Amino acid sequence: MLTKDQLRAAQERTAALFREAGIVLTAAERDNIEIADFGLNELERQGLELVTYVNNERYCAKELVLFPRQTCPEHRHPPVGDDPGKTETFRCRHGNVLLYVEGEPAERPQARIPEGSEPYYTVFREIVLNPGDQYTIPPNTLHWFQAGDAGAIVSEFSSTSRDEFDVFTDPRIKRIPEAAD
Amino acid sequence: MLTKDQLRAAQERTAALFREAGIVLTAAERDNIEIADFGLNELERQGLELVTYVNNERYCAKELVLFPRQTCPEHRHPPVGDDPGKTETFRCRHGNVLLYVEGEPAERPQARIPEGSEPYYTVFREIVLNPGDQYTIPPNTLHWFQAGDAGAIVSEFSSTSRDEFDVFTDPRIKRIPEAAD
Repeated sequence: MLTKDQLRAAQERTAALFREAGIVLTAAERDNIEIADFGLNELERQGLELVTYVNNERYCAKELVLFPRQTCPEHRHPPVGDDPGKTETFRCRHGNVLLYVEGEPAERPQARIPEGSEPYYTVFREIVLNPGDQYTIPPNTLHWFQAGDAGAIVSEFSSTSRDEFDVFTDPRIKRIPEAAD
Repeated sequence: MLTKDQLRAAQERTAALFREAGIVLTAAERDNIEIADFGLNELERQGLELVTYVNNERYCAKELVLFPRQTCPEHRHPPVGDDPGKTETFRCRHGNVLLYVEGEPAERPQARIPEGSEPYYTVFREIVLNPGDQYTIPPNTLHWFQAGDAGAIVSEFSSTSRDEFDVFTDPRIKRIPEAAD
Protein backbone atom coordinates (compact mmCIF):
# COMPACT_ATOMS: atom_id res chain seq x y z
CA MET A 1 0.00 0.00 0.00
CA LEU A 2 1.26 3.47 -0.85
CA THR A 3 2.09 5.74 2.06
CA LYS A 4 0.67 9.23 2.03
CA ASP A 5 4.10 10.60 1.15
CA GLN A 6 4.52 8.19 -1.76
CA LEU A 7 1.05 9.06 -3.00
CA ARG A 8 1.73 12.80 -2.81
CA ALA A 9 5.11 12.43 -4.57
CA ALA A 10 3.55 10.41 -7.41
CA GLN A 11 0.77 12.96 -7.77
CA GLU A 12 3.28 15.79 -7.98
CA ARG A 13 5.38 13.95 -10.55
CA THR A 14 2.25 13.29 -12.62
CA ALA A 15 1.12 16.91 -12.36
CA ALA A 16 4.55 18.03 -13.60
CA LEU A 17 4.26 15.75 -16.65
CA PHE A 18 0.85 17.21 -17.49
CA ARG A 19 2.26 20.71 -17.10
CA GLU A 20 5.20 19.98 -19.42
CA ALA A 21 2.79 18.55 -21.99
CA GLY A 22 0.63 21.68 -21.86
CA ILE A 23 -2.40 19.75 -20.52
CA VAL A 24 -4.26 21.98 -18.07
CA LEU A 25 -5.94 20.48 -14.99
CA THR A 26 -8.05 22.26 -12.41
CA ALA A 27 -6.63 22.50 -8.87
CA ALA A 28 -9.19 19.90 -7.73
CA GLU A 29 -8.14 17.49 -10.49
CA ARG A 30 -4.47 17.94 -9.57
CA ASP A 31 -5.20 17.21 -5.90
CA ASN A 32 -7.11 14.07 -6.83
CA ILE A 33 -4.82 12.46 -9.40
CA GLU A 34 -5.43 8.73 -8.99
CA ILE A 35 -2.32 6.66 -8.36
CA ALA A 36 -2.95 2.96 -9.03
CA ASP A 37 -0.26 0.62 -7.74
CA PHE A 38 -2.64 -2.35 -8.01
CA GLY A 39 -1.62 -3.43 -4.51
CA LEU A 40 1.76 -4.63 -5.84
CA ASN A 41 3.84 -2.02 -4.02
CA GLU A 42 6.17 -1.40 -6.95
CA LEU A 43 4.57 1.65 -8.53
CA GLU A 44 7.58 2.55 -10.68
CA ARG A 45 7.42 -0.82 -12.45
CA GLN A 46 3.73 -1.70 -12.37
CA GLY A 47 1.29 1.14 -11.96
CA LEU A 48 -0.73 3.84 -13.63
CA GLU A 49 -1.57 7.49 -12.94
CA LEU A 50 -4.88 8.87 -14.10
CA VAL A 51 -7.38 11.69 -14.13
CA THR A 52 -11.01 10.88 -14.92
CA TYR A 53 -12.63 13.82 -16.67
CA VAL A 54 -16.09 12.29 -16.95
CA ASN A 55 -17.63 8.88 -16.32
CA ASN A 56 -21.39 8.66 -16.75
CA GLU A 57 -23.83 5.96 -17.80
CA ARG A 58 -22.99 6.50 -21.49
CA TYR A 59 -19.29 7.32 -21.84
CA CYS A 60 -16.04 7.97 -20.04
CA ALA A 61 -12.92 10.03 -20.73
CA LYS A 62 -9.65 9.84 -18.82
CA GLU A 63 -6.09 11.03 -19.18
CA LEU A 64 -3.57 8.28 -18.37
CA VAL A 65 0.05 8.85 -17.43
CA LEU A 66 2.82 6.27 -17.42
CA PHE A 67 6.26 6.97 -16.00
CA PRO A 68 9.21 5.77 -18.16
CA ARG A 69 8.90 1.99 -18.68
CA GLN A 70 6.01 1.81 -16.21
CA THR A 71 3.59 -1.00 -17.06
CA CYS A 72 -0.16 -1.25 -16.61
CA PRO A 73 -0.64 -4.95 -15.86
CA GLU A 74 -2.64 -7.32 -18.08
CA HIS A 75 -6.39 -7.20 -17.59
CA ARG A 76 -9.76 -7.24 -19.34
CA HIS A 77 -13.07 -5.44 -18.91
CA PRO A 78 -15.71 -8.17 -18.58
CA PRO A 79 -19.45 -7.97 -19.23
CA VAL A 80 -21.37 -6.47 -16.29
CA GLY A 81 -25.13 -6.94 -16.44
CA ASP A 82 -26.40 -5.60 -19.75
CA ASP A 83 -23.02 -4.03 -20.55
CA PRO A 84 -20.88 -6.25 -22.84
CA GLY A 85 -17.77 -4.82 -21.16
CA LYS A 86 -15.90 -1.61 -21.68
CA THR A 87 -14.76 -0.65 -25.19
CA GLU A 88 -11.84 1.78 -25.00
CA THR A 89 -9.80 3.87 -27.40
CA PHE A 90 -6.25 4.82 -26.43
CA ARG A 91 -4.87 7.91 -28.14
CA CYS A 92 -1.21 8.64 -27.49
CA ARG A 93 -0.63 12.35 -26.76
CA HIS A 94 3.00 12.45 -25.64
CA GLY A 95 5.86 9.96 -25.37
CA ASN A 96 5.08 6.51 -26.66
CA VAL A 97 3.31 3.35 -25.59
CA LEU A 98 3.72 -0.33 -26.38
CA LEU A 99 0.26 -1.89 -26.25
CA TYR A 100 -0.32 -5.65 -26.19
CA VAL A 101 -3.62 -7.35 -26.97
CA GLU A 102 -4.89 -10.81 -27.85
CA GLY A 103 -3.85 -12.05 -31.31
CA GLU A 104 -0.77 -13.04 -33.29
CA PRO A 105 2.15 -12.49 -30.88
CA ALA A 106 5.09 -10.30 -31.86
CA GLU A 107 8.25 -12.33 -32.48
CA ARG A 108 10.30 -10.02 -30.31
CA PRO A 109 8.08 -7.85 -28.11
CA GLN A 110 9.79 -4.54 -27.41
CA ALA A 111 8.44 -4.20 -23.88
CA ARG A 112 10.29 -5.59 -20.90
CA ILE A 113 8.04 -7.78 -18.77
CA PRO A 114 8.29 -6.76 -15.11
CA GLU A 115 10.63 -9.21 -13.37
CA GLY A 116 8.88 -11.68 -11.13
CA SER A 117 5.56 -11.16 -12.89
CA GLU A 118 6.29 -13.14 -16.09
CA PRO A 119 3.42 -15.64 -15.65
CA TYR A 120 0.91 -12.81 -15.63
CA TYR A 121 1.70 -11.46 -19.09
CA THR A 122 0.12 -13.75 -21.68
CA VAL A 123 -0.89 -11.68 -24.75
CA PHE A 124 1.72 -10.29 -27.13
CA ARG A 125 0.14 -8.83 -30.23
CA GLU A 126 2.10 -5.57 -30.29
CA ILE A 127 0.76 -2.13 -31.24
CA VAL A 128 3.15 0.81 -31.05
CA LEU A 129 1.47 4.14 -30.33
CA ASN A 130 3.34 7.36 -31.01
CA PRO A 131 1.75 10.81 -30.55
CA GLY A 132 -1.38 11.04 -32.70
CA ASP A 133 -1.74 7.25 -32.98
CA GLN A 134 -4.72 5.49 -31.46
CA TYR A 135 -6.17 2.01 -31.07
CA THR A 136 -9.56 0.72 -29.94
CA ILE A 137 -9.70 -2.34 -27.68
CA PRO A 138 -12.92 -4.41 -27.88
CA PRO A 139 -14.76 -5.46 -24.69
CA ASN A 140 -13.48 -8.39 -22.64
CA THR A 141 -10.11 -8.47 -24.49
CA LEU A 142 -6.92 -9.05 -22.51
CA HIS A 143 -4.47 -6.16 -22.82
CA TRP A 144 -1.52 -4.53 -21.10
CA PHE A 145 0.72 -1.61 -21.94
CA GLN A 146 4.09 -0.11 -21.14
CA ALA A 147 5.53 3.35 -21.75
CA GLY A 148 8.79 3.85 -23.61
CA ASP A 149 11.83 5.49 -22.04
CA ALA A 150 10.23 8.95 -22.04
CA GLY A 151 7.00 7.91 -20.34
CA ALA A 152 3.64 8.61 -21.93
CA ILE A 153 0.39 10.50 -21.74
CA VAL A 154 -2.59 8.72 -23.26
CA SER A 155 -6.16 9.96 -23.67
CA GLU A 156 -8.68 7.20 -23.06
CA PHE A 157 -12.13 7.53 -24.65
CA SER A 158 -14.49 4.72 -23.70
CA SER A 159 -17.89 3.40 -22.79
CA THR A 160 -18.75 3.60 -19.08
CA SER A 161 -15.86 2.68 -16.80
CA ARG A 162 -16.45 0.17 -14.01
CA ASP A 163 -12.88 -0.37 -12.85
CA GLU A 164 -13.95 -2.39 -9.82
CA PHE A 165 -14.98 -5.26 -12.14
CA ASP A 166 -11.69 -5.39 -14.09
CA VAL A 167 -10.20 -8.88 -14.23
CA PHE A 168 -6.42 -9.00 -13.86
CA THR A 169 -4.30 -11.96 -14.89
CA ASP A 170 -2.12 -11.54 -11.79
CA PRO A 171 -4.15 -12.91 -8.85
CA ARG A 172 -2.19 -10.70 -6.41
CA ILE A 173 -3.71 -7.57 -7.91
CA LYS A 174 -6.41 -5.55 -6.21
CA ARG A 175 -7.64 -2.79 -8.53
CA ILE A 176 -9.06 -0.62 -5.77
CA PRO A 177 -6.62 -0.93 -2.86
CA GLU A 178 -7.75 0.50 0.43
CA ALA A 179 -6.51 3.99 1.21
CA ALA A 180 -3.42 4.33 3.37
CA ASP A 181 -3.98 5.54 6.93
CA MET B 1 -20.59 26.72 -50.03
CA LEU B 2 -16.84 26.84 -49.34
CA THR B 3 -14.55 26.79 -52.34
CA LYS B 4 -11.70 24.31 -52.33
CA ASP B 5 -9.27 27.15 -51.64
CA GLN B 6 -11.31 28.42 -48.69
CA LEU B 7 -11.55 24.88 -47.33
CA ARG B 8 -7.82 24.31 -47.64
CA ALA B 9 -6.99 27.66 -46.02
CA ALA B 10 -9.30 26.94 -43.06
CA GLN B 11 -7.77 23.48 -42.65
CA GLU B 12 -4.27 24.95 -42.62
CA ARG B 13 -5.24 27.60 -40.09
CA THR B 14 -6.79 24.91 -37.87
CA ALA B 15 -3.75 22.67 -38.17
CA ALA B 16 -1.53 25.58 -37.12
CA LEU B 17 -3.66 26.12 -33.98
CA PHE B 18 -3.34 22.45 -33.05
CA ARG B 19 0.40 22.64 -33.58
CA GLU B 20 0.76 25.72 -31.38
CA ALA B 21 -1.26 23.98 -28.67
CA GLY B 22 0.97 20.90 -28.81
CA ILE B 23 -1.87 18.63 -29.97
CA VAL B 24 -0.49 16.08 -32.40
CA LEU B 25 -2.56 14.90 -35.38
CA THR B 26 -1.67 12.26 -37.92
CA ALA B 27 -1.12 13.42 -41.52
CA ALA B 28 -4.44 11.81 -42.51
CA GLU B 29 -6.26 13.67 -39.71
CA ARG B 30 -4.70 16.98 -40.79
CA ASP B 31 -5.76 16.42 -44.40
CA ASN B 32 -9.31 15.66 -43.32
CA ILE B 33 -9.99 18.42 -40.80
CA GLU B 34 -13.73 19.04 -41.06
CA ILE B 35 -14.71 22.64 -41.77
CA ALA B 36 -18.37 23.25 -40.97
CA ASP B 37 -19.77 26.52 -42.29
CA PHE B 38 -23.33 25.24 -41.86
CA GLY B 39 -24.16 26.45 -45.36
CA LEU B 40 -24.15 30.08 -44.12
CA ASN B 41 -21.09 31.13 -46.10
CA GLU B 42 -19.64 33.23 -43.29
CA LEU B 43 -17.21 30.79 -41.74
CA GLU B 44 -15.30 33.39 -39.73
CA ARG B 45 -18.45 34.39 -37.87
CA GLN B 46 -20.49 31.19 -37.76
CA GLY B 47 -18.62 27.95 -38.17
CA LEU B 48 -16.66 25.19 -36.49
CA GLU B 49 -13.51 23.21 -37.24
CA LEU B 50 -13.22 19.65 -36.00
CA VAL B 51 -11.36 16.37 -35.94
CA THR B 52 -13.28 13.23 -34.99
CA TYR B 53 -10.95 10.78 -33.25
CA VAL B 54 -13.52 8.03 -32.79
CA ASN B 55 -17.28 7.65 -33.26
CA ASN B 56 -18.66 4.20 -32.68
CA GLU B 57 -21.97 2.78 -31.45
CA ARG B 58 -21.04 3.50 -27.82
CA TYR B 59 -19.07 6.76 -27.65
CA CYS B 60 -17.46 9.57 -29.59
CA ALA B 61 -14.46 11.87 -29.08
CA LYS B 62 -13.67 14.96 -31.11
CA GLU B 63 -11.38 17.96 -30.92
CA LEU B 64 -13.18 21.20 -31.75
CA VAL B 65 -11.51 24.42 -32.87
CA LEU B 66 -13.05 27.88 -32.91
CA PHE B 67 -11.33 30.86 -34.47
CA PRO B 68 -11.42 34.10 -32.40
CA ARG B 69 -15.08 35.04 -31.76
CA GLN B 70 -16.28 32.32 -34.12
CA THR B 71 -19.69 30.96 -33.09
CA CYS B 72 -21.16 27.48 -33.39
CA PRO B 73 -24.85 28.21 -34.02
CA GLU B 74 -27.64 27.16 -31.66
CA HIS B 75 -28.76 23.54 -32.00
CA ARG B 76 -29.82 20.43 -30.12
CA HIS B 77 -29.22 16.70 -30.47
CA PRO B 78 -32.67 15.09 -30.62
CA PRO B 79 -33.67 11.51 -29.83
CA VAL B 80 -32.99 9.12 -32.72
CA GLY B 81 -34.66 5.72 -32.43
CA ASP B 82 -33.66 4.17 -29.08
CA ASP B 83 -31.06 6.87 -28.48
CA PRO B 84 -32.35 9.68 -26.20
CA GLY B 85 -30.06 12.12 -28.05
CA LYS B 86 -26.39 12.86 -27.67
CA THR B 87 -24.99 13.73 -24.25
CA GLU B 88 -21.76 15.69 -24.62
CA THR B 89 -19.02 17.00 -22.37
CA PHE B 90 -17.01 20.02 -23.50
CA ARG B 91 -13.58 20.38 -21.93
CA CYS B 92 -11.72 23.57 -22.75
CA ARG B 93 -8.06 22.90 -23.60
CA HIS B 94 -6.84 26.26 -24.87
CA GLY B 95 -8.26 29.75 -25.18
CA ASN B 96 -11.73 30.19 -23.78
CA VAL B 97 -15.33 29.52 -24.67
CA LEU B 98 -18.63 31.12 -23.81
CA LEU B 99 -21.25 28.37 -23.76
CA TYR B 100 -24.99 29.03 -23.69
CA VAL B 101 -27.65 26.49 -22.73
CA GLU B 102 -31.31 26.45 -21.70
CA GLY B 103 -31.99 27.92 -18.25
CA GLU B 104 -31.86 31.20 -16.36
CA PRO B 105 -30.50 33.72 -18.91
CA ALA B 106 -27.42 35.81 -18.11
CA GLU B 107 -28.29 39.47 -17.55
CA ARG B 108 -25.54 40.60 -19.89
CA PRO B 109 -24.28 37.73 -22.05
CA GLN B 110 -20.61 38.25 -22.90
CA ALA B 111 -20.89 36.75 -26.39
CA ARG B 112 -21.73 38.88 -29.40
CA ILE B 113 -24.60 37.41 -31.38
CA PRO B 114 -23.70 37.22 -35.08
CA GLU B 115 -25.31 40.16 -36.83
CA GLY B 116 -28.31 39.27 -38.93
CA SER B 117 -28.82 36.00 -37.04
CA GLU B 118 -30.33 37.42 -33.84
CA PRO B 119 -33.65 35.51 -34.09
CA TYR B 120 -31.80 32.20 -34.09
CA TYR B 121 -30.11 32.62 -30.70
CA THR B 122 -32.70 31.94 -27.99
CA VAL B 123 -30.93 30.42 -24.94
CA PHE B 124 -28.69 32.50 -22.70
CA ARG B 125 -27.69 30.62 -19.59
CA GLU B 126 -23.97 31.40 -19.69
CA ILE B 127 -21.13 29.05 -18.80
CA VAL B 128 -17.57 30.34 -19.15
CA LEU B 129 -15.00 27.66 -19.89
CA ASN B 130 -11.33 28.39 -19.39
CA PRO B 131 -8.60 25.76 -19.89
CA GLY B 132 -9.30 22.77 -17.62
CA ASP B 133 -12.99 23.68 -17.22
CA GLN B 134 -15.68 21.39 -18.56
CA TYR B 135 -19.46 21.16 -18.79
CA THR B 136 -21.83 18.33 -19.74
CA ILE B 137 -24.85 19.13 -21.92
CA PRO B 138 -27.85 16.78 -21.53
CA PRO B 139 -29.57 15.28 -24.61
CA ASN B 140 -31.98 17.39 -26.64
CA THR B 141 -30.90 20.65 -24.93
CA LEU B 142 -30.49 23.80 -27.01
CA HIS B 143 -26.95 25.18 -26.87
CA TRP B 144 -24.52 27.38 -28.76
CA PHE B 145 -21.01 28.59 -28.09
CA GLN B 146 -18.52 31.26 -29.06
CA ALA B 147 -14.76 31.51 -28.60
CA GLY B 148 -13.15 34.47 -26.89
CA ASP B 149 -10.68 36.76 -28.62
CA ALA B 150 -7.92 34.13 -28.66
CA GLY B 151 -10.03 31.36 -30.21
CA ALA B 152 -10.39 28.01 -28.49
CA ILE B 153 -9.65 24.32 -28.62
CA VAL B 154 -12.26 22.12 -26.91
CA SER B 155 -12.24 18.36 -26.41
CA GLU B 156 -15.69 16.86 -26.84
CA PHE B 157 -16.43 13.54 -25.13
CA SER B 158 -19.89 12.19 -25.89
CA SER B 159 -22.25 9.39 -26.64
CA THR B 160 -22.50 8.40 -30.32
CA SER B 161 -22.52 11.36 -32.68
CA ARG B 162 -25.19 11.53 -35.39
CA ASP B 163 -24.59 15.05 -36.68
CA GLU B 164 -26.98 14.63 -39.61
CA PHE B 165 -29.92 14.65 -37.16
CA ASP B 166 -28.92 17.85 -35.34
CA VAL B 167 -31.72 20.40 -35.16
CA PHE B 168 -30.61 24.01 -35.68
CA THR B 169 -32.70 27.01 -34.65
CA ASP B 170 -31.71 28.83 -37.86
CA PRO B 171 -33.76 27.26 -40.68
CA ARG B 172 -31.16 28.35 -43.24
CA ILE B 173 -28.62 25.91 -41.77
CA LYS B 174 -27.64 22.67 -43.45
CA ARG B 175 -25.34 20.68 -41.14
CA ILE B 176 -23.84 18.56 -43.88
CA PRO B 177 -23.46 20.87 -46.89
CA GLU B 178 -22.58 19.22 -50.18
CA ALA B 179 -18.91 19.31 -51.11
CA ALA B 180 -17.73 22.03 -53.46
CA ASP B 181 -16.93 20.97 -57.02
